[in-house]
Amino acid sequence: LHPEGKPLAVSGLGEFDLIDRLAALVSAPSSPRLAVDIGDDAAAWASEPNAMTVATTDALVEGVHFDLMTTSWTDLGWKALAENVSDIAAMGCQPRYAFVALGLSASAPLDGVEDLYRGMAACGQAFGCRVAGGDVVRAPCLFISVTLIGESLPSVSGRPEDGLLRRSQARPGDVIAVTGPLGGSAAGLRLLQAGWSDASTRGTDDVLAERAAVAAHRRPTPRVTVGRILVEAGVRCAIDVSDGLVADVGHICEQSHVDAALDADRIPIHPGAARRFGTEALELALSGGEDYELVGVGAETAISAASARLGQQGEAPLIVIGEIRSQAGPRPEVRVRSAEGGMVPVTRGGYRHF
Amino acid sequence: LHPEGKPLAVSGLGEFDLIDRLAALVSAPSSPRLAVDIGDDAAAWASEPNAMTVATTDALVEGVHFDLMTTSWTDLGWKALAENVSDIAAMGCQPRYAFVALGLSASAPLDGVEDLYRGMAACGQAFGCRVAGGDVVRAPCLFISVTLIGESLPSVSGRPEDGLLRRSQARPGDVIAVTGPLGGSAAGLRLLQAGWSDASTRGTDDVLAERAAVAAHRRPTPRVTVGRILVEAGVRCAIDVSDGLVADVGHICEQSHVDAALDADRIPIHPGAARRFGTEALELALSGGEDYELVGVGAETAISAASARLGQQGEAPLIVIGEIRSQAGPRPEVRVRSAEGGMVPVTRGGYRHF
Repeated sequence: LHPEGKPLAVSGLGEFDLIDRLAALVSAPSSPRLAVDIGDDAAAWASEPNAMTVATTDALVEGVHFDLMTTSWTDLGWKALAENVSDIAAMGCQPRYAFVALGLSASAPLDGVEDLYRGMAACGQAFGCRVAGGDVVRAPCLFISVTLIGESLPSVSGRPEDGLLRRSQARPGDVIAVTGPLGGSAAGLRLLQAGWSDASTRGTDDVLAERAAVAAHRRPTPRVTVGRILVEAGVRCAIDVSDGLVADVGHICEQSHVDAALDADRIPIHPGAARRFGTEALELALSGGEDYELVGVGAETAISAASARLGQQGEAPLIVIGEIRSQAGPRPEVRVRSAEGGMVPVTRGGYRHF
Repeated sequence: LHPEGKPLAVSGLGEFDLIDRLAALVSAPSSPRLAVDIGDDAAAWASEPNAMTVATTDALVEGVHFDLMTTSWTDLGWKALAENVSDIAAMGCQPRYAFVALGLSASAPLDGVEDLYRGMAACGQAFGCRVAGGDVVRAPCLFISVTLIGESLPSVSGRPEDGLLRRSQARPGDVIAVTGPLGGSAAGLRLLQAGWSDASTRGTDDVLAERAAVAAHRRPTPRVTVGRILVEAGVRCAIDVSDGLVADVGHICEQSHVDAALDADRIPIHPGAARRFGTEALELALSGGEDYELVGVGAETAISAASARLGQQGEAPLIVIGEIRSQAGPRPEVRVRSAEGGMVPVTRGGYRHF
């Protein structure tokens, strides 16, 4: 804080002083080791032999992807890293090193920016990765872009690609399974936008469900361990639910040149969506997005083996929600069947940026 | 172009269509191979055994780091990648895979954005790397953030760190050398801001020098080959001139806990700066930045060996400009001596973002 008690803006510091302060927040003794840490032209590390390196990037912009009225700086830091962690989990890999580009106005509050890095550090601690570098720049709009680098399990087959979960590996006859309930994040966002606050001292099921939905939105939990277990069980295809279930299964269909059929009544709906949004809950689960559960696709034997392994490790079993079919039309399609045998109309969903 | 001949804005396309178009621009048969290409949750590749992986991030924001009045979309793409290539070169490494986060308004011109990716593709072709993934998002301000991943030469010593050039490895008694002339980019920017255009049909030395300065600003040439040769010759310390010579040598001093003494009359000044900016030329060379030459620091024998190797490979020799000394005061310092034996006053320079 400023001597007069006013929050200090980042403009009170030079670029290099600011970077030093932020760097101190993201390095912890238990973090992955770097051979060359923040402060050189680039960070450096030795890769695991026999493994593959993977990398992904996602950017968040204020007013487009988040709103500081419903998202705290700390939660923003967690989410910015977590959505990338989820992409690495969806490859069946371990996240390791994150590189952050942050655009800030000169009046951005220093304590807010430090909280942002604390949120990233907390997420990194939870999932075995750390911020290893980046750039902080002045910008007329607040943005945060994270590139996350991960590593596959060392290949036992001798084919390193077998250590990965890929969108292109779905085959007709495969079953489609999901790792947990959907629609919670979208329900949590709606609650927050309607002014929800956790003032209730009651512990009714409704309140607990609302809290869980808000937590799913604020602090999503990527499925890193589950992704690795899918690989070990012989599953070769997955995606994370970020755009929305139907959109994301659609990405698998496009990359694999197949159709998908989902059963509406088998799709696990988050209790926060089910209890508060009634007839809309299925739509939130199908199109809401940002749930960061994984969708695994594989032969029934591999999916069963993965479920058994998950149970042994104290994780919830996979929930089968449909199957892969040969592509019938000119373009890959995802259909959702209702319990009565009809088709559920689906707005394809998925966030369209432009 | 739009049917009526008007430029098409990116808003005319969905996010995934736009990404497909951009992805097509950055993949070339001669690019580094990916095991998993654009279109999955993450890109994937096998790392070289015995090498180190390095990564760096830089972001550019319109109105802060560039101006579309003096920088074309194509040049912006080249520069956004080139400044990261230069960081990888300054580690002595080979750039491989770039991840791009691009923030665009809905009215951004599609042909401009495609030119941006063409510029990145051209830079990648020139230096052996490629765009391997990224994110395109809507934003109220135009920004481009690039994270570039590279690899060291395989270690021959068995210590992988010996394959790197690090800021922390300067020792008292080492000589400081630079790979080429400085101040060209800053001179080129000043010329462009003053309305320079290449209308002249004359080929006088002045016009050629101006053209070279403008080219140094628009299409800087990172020193990837030179960085590798420094490592092979046993040099262990370098930085690229991005913030400005004095500021960048200062970064080496801070990381190595040493002082540096530079000789003003040994510093090679770009002809575009020398011919057009007279007495200001030295200041441009000392503080201008964005030259992307390398500063190598090492024992005189290693610097001489590097110069000899550079000559064998048709590259210009290194130019010795000063030496490293023990740190005398409480903080590391860089001093610039004039030919007359006095001190040149230096604005520390370096871009201060806030």
